[in-house]
Order: sequence, then structure tokens, then C-alpha cells
Amino acid sequence: MTTKRSQPAKKTSAPRKTSSNKPKSRRPSGPVRVAILGFGTVGSSVARVLAASKFPDLQLTHIYNRDVERKRASAAAKPVPAEVIWTESIDEVLNSKVDVILELIGGLNPIESWIRRALTSGKSVVTANKQLIAYRGASLARLAQKHNVQLIHGAAVAGGVPVLAGLLQGQSGDQITRIRGIVNGTCNFILSRMEAGAEYGTVLADAQALGYAESNPSADVDGFDARAKLCILSRIALRAELDPDQVPTQTISTVTQTDFHYAKELDCTIRQVATAEIDRQKRGRNTVQARVAPMLIPHTSPMAWSHGTGNMVVATGRFGGDVVFSGQGAGGNPTAVAVVSDLLAVAHGHTSIQLPVKRCQVTGDILSPHYLRFVVNDRPGIVSAIAGALAKVHINIDSLLQRPGHDKHALPFVVTTEPCLTSTIEKAVRAMAKMDCMLEPPLCLQMLEPDPLPTA
Amino acid sequence: MTTKRSQPAKKTSAPRKTSSNKPKSRRPSGPVRVAILGFGTVGSSVARVLAASKFPDLQLTHIYNRDVERKRASAAAKPVPAEVIWTESIDEVLNSKVDVILELIGGLNPIESWIRRALTSGKSVVTANKQLIAYRGASLARLAQKHNVQLIHGAAVAGGVPVLAGLLQGQSGDQITRIRGIVNGTCNFILSRMEAGAEYGTVLADAQALGYAESNPSADVDGFDARAKLCILSRIALRAELDPDQVPTQTISTVTQTDFHYAKELDCTIRQVATAEIDRQKRGRNTVQARVAPMLIPHTSPMAWSHGTGNMVVATGRFGGDVVFSGQGAGGNPTAVAVVSDLLAVAHGHTSIQLPVKRCQVTGDILSPHYLRFVVNDRPGIVSAIAGALAKVHINIDSLLQRPGHDKHALPFVVTTEPCLTSTIEKAVRAMAKMDCMLEPPLCLQMLEPDPLPTA
Repeated sequence: MTTKRSQPAKKTSAPRKTSSNKPKSRRPSGPVRVAILGFGTVGSSVARVLAASKFPDLQLTHIYNRDVERKRASAAAKPVPAEVIWTESIDEVLNSKVDVILELIGGLNPIESWIRRALTSGKSVVTANKQLIAYRGASLARLAQKHNVQLIHGAAVAGGVPVLAGLLQGQSGDQITRIRGIVNGTCNFILSRMEAGAEYGTVLADAQALGYAESNPSADVDGFDARAKLCILSRIALRAELDPDQVPTQTISTVTQTDFHYAKELDCTIRQVATAEIDRQKRGRNTVQARVAPMLIPHTSPMAWSHGTGNMVVATGRFGGDVVFSGQGAGGNPTAVAVVSDLLAVAHGHTSIQLPVKRCQVTGDILSPHYLRFVVNDRPGIVSAIAGALAKVHINIDSLLQRPGHDKHALPFVVTTEPCLTSTIEKAVRAMAKMDCMLEPPLCLQMLEPDPLPTA
Repeated sequence: MTTKRSQPAKKTSAPRKTSSNKPKSRRPSGPVRVAILGFGTVGSSVARVLAASKFPDLQLTHIYNRDVERKRASAAAKPVPAEVIWTESIDEVLNSKVDVILELIGGLNPIESWIRRALTSGKSVVTANKQLIAYRGASLARLAQKHNVQLIHGAAVAGGVPVLAGLLQGQSGDQITRIRGIVNGTCNFILSRMEAGAEYGTVLADAQALGYAESNPSADVDGFDARAKLCILSRIALRAELDPDQVPTQTISTVTQTDFHYAKELDCTIRQVATAEIDRQKRGRNTVQARVAPMLIPHTSPMAWSHGTGNMVVATGRFGGDVVFSGQGAGGNPTAVAVVSDLLAVAHGHTSIQLPVKRCQVTGDILSPHYLRFVVNDRPGIVSAIAGALAKVHINIDSLLQRPGHDKHALPFVVTTEPCLTSTIEKAVRAMAKMDCMLEPPLCLQMLEPDPLPTA
């Protein structure tokens, strides 16, 4: 790990312009010099993985962090080789001869400007920063291409699950029409614990105590984290660039134990699902149906298998059918595996397959069966009123469920509908919410239709 | 698709030797010229996928097949562009200026010599040939490296499931200690139909009628196909080169409906599992525990979710934990997706991550609980005799199951054991097989232990 090189890789590699103007692989003759920005959970896991595996092609040279002496003195710094330079100066890192910047700080500011400087000065960038890649990924990819360096972000979606690598390298020959998944481990932890009988508030508190959820859990439970990941997946899999702010989200915080009981009667469970699909009706008109929301998932769907903090992504291809990726989506070590794999890819001259990406519009208006749960002060005529509100917008009821044993003054019951548009059912829900029997706003969840099992 | 180029890519690409002597990416300035060897199910699917997606970087120039005029006249030839050269002469293809040979014929002879000629003459090779890669993969990879070309075989394992790409690109930063999976779609079809109630003979006949099984099904049901795939997975994931002939196999043809009934009582199902694991006891001594056999899988294991002709691979990493890949492992279109993705990788200058691979010894002697099913002519003393045979080799019984309703003259019953070595229990089984009450040889299956669910 002490080998020194007099020239940065870009100068020995002599990039050659080709007509296709794709980035060139860079194969430096010594180990690739790596600077870590951010020595938190993932950064220290990366140091541990590098120390354990001693990859001859990777040399950690710099660690940048605020208050760096505290980090340097911590137990987490133990696997870091003595010759590594610890610094609080980003300029020292960006002006050095490191070949790859490994960005593990997160957020847009000031990270975006640092990464732009790195790429412009001929350094490749490996990052796990989902917000940055969701909002600026396409533009940064163009910058990397222009400067003939790599920008790789395998850890930005689903942590240690190699879904981006699989999609890019293994499914580029397909036409992916839909990408759907469970990409927020915190929500999956909360909802799978609720499936096992716990209440939302209790599990959220547990998740916070275990460090899975922030003290302000909004980014996770309200769907913004999953939305960023969905936009990255859309770009890679559907080759559709989406504006994250256009993707509708729905919180999981209004889902209750009652909903899990009714879901089970419907042979389903409930998970936070992120879904994006090329709009078949409007195909060619560059529209993608996208949404992040708690949804009812049939027990036969692979997504119903995902428990705990696990992540799962299902990519549906025109030719290859459904491909499922699953594993640990978060945590220091799984994320470190993803970023170290990306570092090795840079060191081994990896070049991403670059397929054309289109800027697409988003619609959250999806044709699907829906689940409606009401809590009412029971009196004659309620079912008739609800059925009337649905009939008014031409929605057919598929089933009506009412479990015994509830207080008639706070009676939960459920209606499922035949397929209807989100916009239509939301209109009906707004009308029903105004009925004076409603003790709380009705909960409306999309129901995923069962995928046919590949039993031939 | 009609662009012509006067020079093959290797001449315009001017490879540069580096100290690490890894293959260089080749970025030709026009489309990569592709020759297909073998225009069967997969070959014609590749032509269809290429025609549907019109990748500007890929140009199909030659199709080689025996009796090629019959192929050319078939409906499957319809998507093939008019300018493609159809030929029965392998020399015409190998002496042409094609950049990539796509080999879809299969088998070792004469394919190995053709592929060696192609690599030696500077052509990259994409292949779905599992036997070739299992037996000759390491040697061919060295030849490709020497001649600075690519040898990619993403379709050789699990067809359309990008497990090799995911392992190579997304998990290279981990230390994979175990690779386990369901990699033969025919066996998975047969066993999942048996799980649903059918008898082996009936399902095998159905599989043959549907084209999933050969008229001689031995390669599938006796485990040789899965064994080849396991050896490829071992090389990529464990970085352990195994001799396929050393890996023990066990047929699925002796599994009966009775076994599925008992498996269900044990909260398990039965699948053909291929497993390879770095030997923890002998670690550092280059031994891998490997085996292909029908095994009992707990219902909580991801592998129990795999139905029909689906494939599933679970890679267990020291740092990243379990990563699951699943999807369609066979069939023209999924396999075509894998090979077209590999062609795109070559066209886009892909270079595989090259990590050191060790030649390893194989042991099939695995410490595990086992399932023993006997069919006996019932009389007093049988259980005592069986228990005695197990006690003699110090194996403890975990449970004894006997379902009611069977003829006492052909009574099936089951013993499960505490963990014991394969070699030990096989010794006991050989002794028990000689008892005169045994109406058929006892069936001995390894039981996989439940994986802890990642519920934190």
C-alpha cells in the first residue's frame, strides 16, 4: 500500500477520442489512489474491507472529514494504513494526485460542486449519494464522459445488492418496461414488523432506537428516499430521466394493524413499493407511470418475501421477463461492498455501457385495483353512501370486508375496487372524506395484481 | 446495419501493454461485427432481439450453421437483415473480419478448437456454453487475456438472470464464502410440480413434451448440467477453480410424492440444489465443499420460493451477507438477453474485473442434518435396527416420522438426523440397505438449515 507513482493515471493513459465519444477505460500501471470523503459508518467499513482484502489495485491515500482528528483517534480508524493523509481541507484532496474520489458524505451542497471539480480535473468518482445522483446524475454523467473519467454509483440504490451492475451489464440487451421494488430498508423493517403484529408507533420507536430511522423519519416513511432511488433505477433500467419532484409519494404512517388484518384476508401483505413503468397507453410519448406508496402485495409476489431491512428490486423485461435482485440494502458493510466493487471496476478499466437516456414526464395516474379502508361511526346507509360515491365516478366494487369484533362507534371496514385510475378514486375519496360518519380520512392503497408464477 | 469498415477493430485499437497485463478495452469506431455460430432457439432469439432493438453498436454479419439453407429458409430467419452472410464453412467465419464470435452450438468438440482459433486471431468470444466454460473456462480466459480480447459467458449460468455480471461487477469487493442455487430449470419444473402433487414420471413426461427435458434426461435430472454451472459460479464467486468431475452429484429421480409429504411436515420443500462453500475447517488449504443433489429446503429460505423453470442463486459474502438473484434461467429470449448484453459489453469496451483464481480440491463431505426415507415390510424391531445402525456410527436421531394410512407391507417412514458428515451417514445407509426388510434402497437427502431471516 506504499507504492508511489509520479504521474496520475490520466496522464499515462492517453485517452483516444472515438466517434462514439464514450469514456475510455483507464488502466494505470500501479494501484489506483483513492480518497475517501466522509469517514462515518460506510467510510470506516470501506477502510475495514480494504484492510481485510488487501486488493493490490487499490491504495487508500486520503481521508477527508470535518473534525478529522477526532475521527483519526477513533477505533474505526484502526484499519487505516499509517501513510494515509487525514485532512479537513477538501482542496488538499482535490488538488492531490488521487485517481478516484469516493464520496460518502451525502446531500447536494457542497458535494455537487466538489464532484464537478473532481471530474473536471480528471478524477473518477465513486459515490453512494442517492439524492445527488437522482437530481444531478444525468448531468454529472455527461461531465464525466466529457472528461473521460468514470462516475459510478452502485451503492446509491439497494446498498449491497448489485442491481445497478446487473441491470447495466447483464440486462442491457433487454428492453426493461417496468422497475419495481422495495428500496427503503427502514420502511420494510417497520412494515414487516407490523405484519408480525406490532403497531406503527412502537416499531418506529424501535427502528429509531436501533439506528434504522432518523429522529425525523420523514425522508424514509414519507417516501422521499425511495423516490430518489426509483429515479436512479428509471434512468438505468428504463433509460428514462425523471424529475424526482414529479413522482407522487404517499406516507406509510397512516397504515394500521387493521390494514394488515384485512390485507391478510385478501392474501396480501403491505409494503412501501417504488414503481416506474413505461406508459403503455402513451408509449413513445415519453411518459413514465411512477409512484412511491404503501401498496397491497399478493403473497405470491417475490416482494412479499422481503422482510426486515432487506431490499428487493424486480426488473421486467420485454424479452427476459422478471428478474429479481434482493439482499441487504443498507448498513456499513453491505454498502462498503458496493463501493469497493465500484473502486475495483475503476481500477480494472471498467467502462459502463452507455445507452441513450430520454427526459420523460411522470404520471402518478395508474390503472389498478384499490383498497379503501374506512373508520366510521356505524349507522344504516353508510355502505350505500360509499357505494354511491364510487358509482358516481363509475368505479365498480370488487369486495366488501368487515371483520367482527369492532366497536360500532369506530368501525373499520374495507372496500376493494375493480381497476380504476388513481385520479378517479382520489376524487371519490375526497368526496367520501366529507361524510359526517367518517371518524378519520379514508385510507386508499393501490393493490398490485398477482404476477403469474413462472410455472409454465 | 450496412456500414462497412475496412479494418477490424483490433487493428485500429492499438492495445497497450500494462504491468498488470489485463485485457484492454477495445473501442472500435463503428459497430462491432458479430457472427452467430448456431442458429437454433437461442440464435434465432438473438436475431429477433437485435432486430427489435436496433443497437447502433452491433452489426450481425455472419450466421454459421450446418445445413444452413434450411435455417435460412425458416420462419426464424425472418428478422435477419438481408446482407448477413449465411455459411456452412467455419473457416469463412473465422477468417473474416468479424470482431465477435457468438457461440451458441454447445459441447466441447469441435467448439473448443474453434474458440481457441477465434481468440488467437484477435476476435472476442461471447458464449452460452456451460460445459466448455466449466471444463476449459480458466484456460480460455488466459488465452483471451494473452491476445487482448474478451471472453464473456454471462448466459452460461442462469440464462437471463444477470448473476455473473452482478457477482463480477457488483460483488467483487466482497469475499464470497458460499454460492448456492437452483440452476437447472428442468429439475425445478419437475420438483415444483411434484410439490403441487404430481408424480415424477408424469411430470418428466410433461417436461419432455413441453421441450424442457431431453428424451434422455440424465444431464438434467442426474445433476451434470447444474454441476457445470456450479463450477462456473465457483470460479467467479469463490475464485476457486474446480474440476467438475470431482463434484458429487445425486439424481432427483428417486424422490417421490411421499418425500414431499414428509418434507412439508418438516416445513420444507425439495429442490435440486447446487452448493459450493469455502471449507471453513480447512480454510487456506484450498478445499471447497461442493455438491449437486436434491435437498430439503426450509420454507423460509429464498430457494423455496423458486417455482417452475425459474433459476435462483444466493451468494453469501463475508461483508455483504446474502444476495439473491432470480429469474428465468433458460429459454430463447431470456438467454438471448444475456448474450446480447454481453455483445454490448464488448462493443462498449467492457473489461472484466480479473481477480486471482486458485485451483481447489473438492470435497462432497458436508456436515449437515440429513433426511432418511425408508420403505419397509413392517415388522417389530425395524426402528430399533435402524436406530442401531445410526448409533453405530454415532449419528443422533432428531425426529422419526410415520404418516398413517400406508400399507404395512410397503410402509414409508422417515428419520431425520442431527448434523453428521455425508461420508458417515452414507456408510450407515449402505449397512441399512442390506437389511432384509428394506423394499427399496433408503433415500438420503441433505437438509439445509434455515437461514436466519434478515429481520434485524
